[in-house]
Amino acid sequence: MSNDLLNAAERTAIQRLAKALALPAFDKGWVWLAGAGPGDPGLITALGLHAIANANAILYDALVDKTLLKLARPGAELVYAGKRAGRNSCKQSDISRTLVSLARKGKRVLRLKGGDPFVFGRGAEEALTLARAGVPFRIVPGITAGIGGLAYAGIPLTHRDTNHVVTFLTGHGADGKLPKLDWAAIAKGSPTIVLYMARKYAGEIAAKLIAAGRDAGEPAAVVGNASFADQNVRVTTLAELGQAAAESAAPAILIVGENVKLRDSLDWLGALAGKKLAPEPYDDEVLRPIAHVLTST
Amino acid sequence: MSNDLLNAAERTAIQRLAKALALPAFDKGWVWLAGAGPGDPGLITALGLHAIANANAILYDALVDKTLLKLARPGAELVYAGKRAGRNSCKQSDISRTLVSLARKGKRVLRLKGGDPFVFGRGAEEALTLARAGVPFRIVPGITAGIGGLAYAGIPLTHRDTNHVVTFLTGHGADGKLPKLDWAAIAKGSPTIVLYMARKYAGEIAAKLIAAGRDAGEPAAVVGNASFADQNVRVTTLAELGQAAAESAAPAILIVGENVKLRDSLDWLGALAGKKLAPEPYDDEVLRPIAHVLTST
Repeated sequence: MSNDLLNAAERTAIQRLAKALALPAFDKGWVWLAGAGPGDPGLITALGLHAIANANAILYDALVDKTLLKLARPGAELVYAGKRAGRNSCKQSDISRTLVSLARKGKRVLRLKGGDPFVFGRGAEEALTLARAGVPFRIVPGITAGIGGLAYAGIPLTHRDTNHVVTFLTGHGADGKLPKLDWAAIAKGSPTIVLYMARKYAGEIAAKLIAAGRDAGEPAAVVGNASFADQNVRVTTLAELGQAAAESAAPAILIVGENVKLRDSLDWLGALAGKKLAPEPYDDEVLRPIAHVLTST
Repeated sequence: MSNDLLNAAERTAIQRLAKALALPAFDKGWVWLAGAGPGDPGLITALGLHAIANANAILYDALVDKTLLKLARPGAELVYAGKRAGRNSCKQSDISRTLVSLARKGKRVLRLKGGDPFVFGRGAEEALTLARAGVPFRIVPGITAGIGGLAYAGIPLTHRDTNHVVTFLTGHGADGKLPKLDWAAIAKGSPTIVLYMARKYAGEIAAKLIAAGRDAGEPAAVVGNASFADQNVRVTTLAELGQAAAESAAPAILIVGENVKLRDSLDWLGALAGKKLAPEPYDDEVLRPIAHVLTST
């Protein structure tokens, strides 16, 4: 079979869905800045699929699943534009310049990033470059690892018994160093803290949080390759977070907070593999009334 | 045309995509707890579409776009399970009980929530009920309004010049009151604060943040019906946030922080409607080098 026919049926299917959902046309000379989600290709949005199936050029990140790229038009230019801590990487200015250059040549340009383009991903920089260059663009949000990746580990970002507030932070500043943050305020402000790109400084961050009064024995988790088939989850404590992060070979999302305990009951991926879920993650006064109602169903 | 044929082509298209992306089967007796995203039906995930096209029963929230429900199987039971501040609402225990009851009848049950199921949406409670009842379930993350909805307002959640940390909080506790939080720590811990379900207490929250040292003139925004066709954005200041929120008739996501200024350059939806985007959102030393590079393209 020729390459042209390889994914014709899939692209036709996407076209039909685009019509059913009244998705906007991907016009020539435009850049769409889209998030592919944390890993599982099923977490791409309908708009993201539509963009992949119509783009003439796709600049994609390291964490974008290759299954998605197979849905590209025959002949579409696929450009790796990944950046990973400690590896060879593309310069941000080169990526931005390429986006502008391809759009000016009249291509439909898709910048496909892991997660969400506006969550610690330098997507705002890329969009600002497009605005400055007068290139028309659209933002297509994606599922971020700090929400969807944790859900695949059975850890809900919020639960009314654990937190009414959550703080996301990046462990990787523009200069590659740990950003200067008010750690005491962060420690006190939110029971749940999610750390992006923080494997390197996880131990240092944990020490700062403990110094600010957080309990060293507080639950924490390191979710490597979140939502990918080879996802691995290390449940640990705040005191051991640095060590657990160091043991993870893969890009990881980190979380500190009581939410981690809920994994005992909510690890639905584990349950798929035969794990028995606990009926109660912890002593839970609030949820008992519902349990009672259910007994009488 | 019979109802059976109305969306047959769309459901076939979804089936083909499910195969291409190797999505898991939606088995009988299971509950899938999925997020539909903030509003725009294009922000549903591939897994979400797959779930809608295969469910025998769908319990959906107020903020789920009706376009999505049209993709349901003919004969699927569509149950409104919405909750909105100050309106008639379904009890949480009734929703949980219905999910369990339908699953035990051998239905494929989809609980379709606005946004993401684990972000201030009581999805964790619903999932815990399922775990307790021994009903198998899967979590399908969705785009949350505090990220994707803001992106549709041209406001990036993060940007390296504005914030390396962001705090999400809900203005609506389990008892309907403003949760008791450490406002001083929240005010100091994060330059960017996103408020969910906070229209009612926006003025009170703003006063607490100002009392804790935040600048009354700091930029803020109220994004009503985020990402829907009738999205409306009010750019304001922290001091005026309560007033702006009160003027919004629709469910809204609120944000406080310098990120709001980036909207002048990144309001891509506005640009679609003819608005001219500012080449520079503010005096931006960091981005100038890229601008220089682009000039020589």
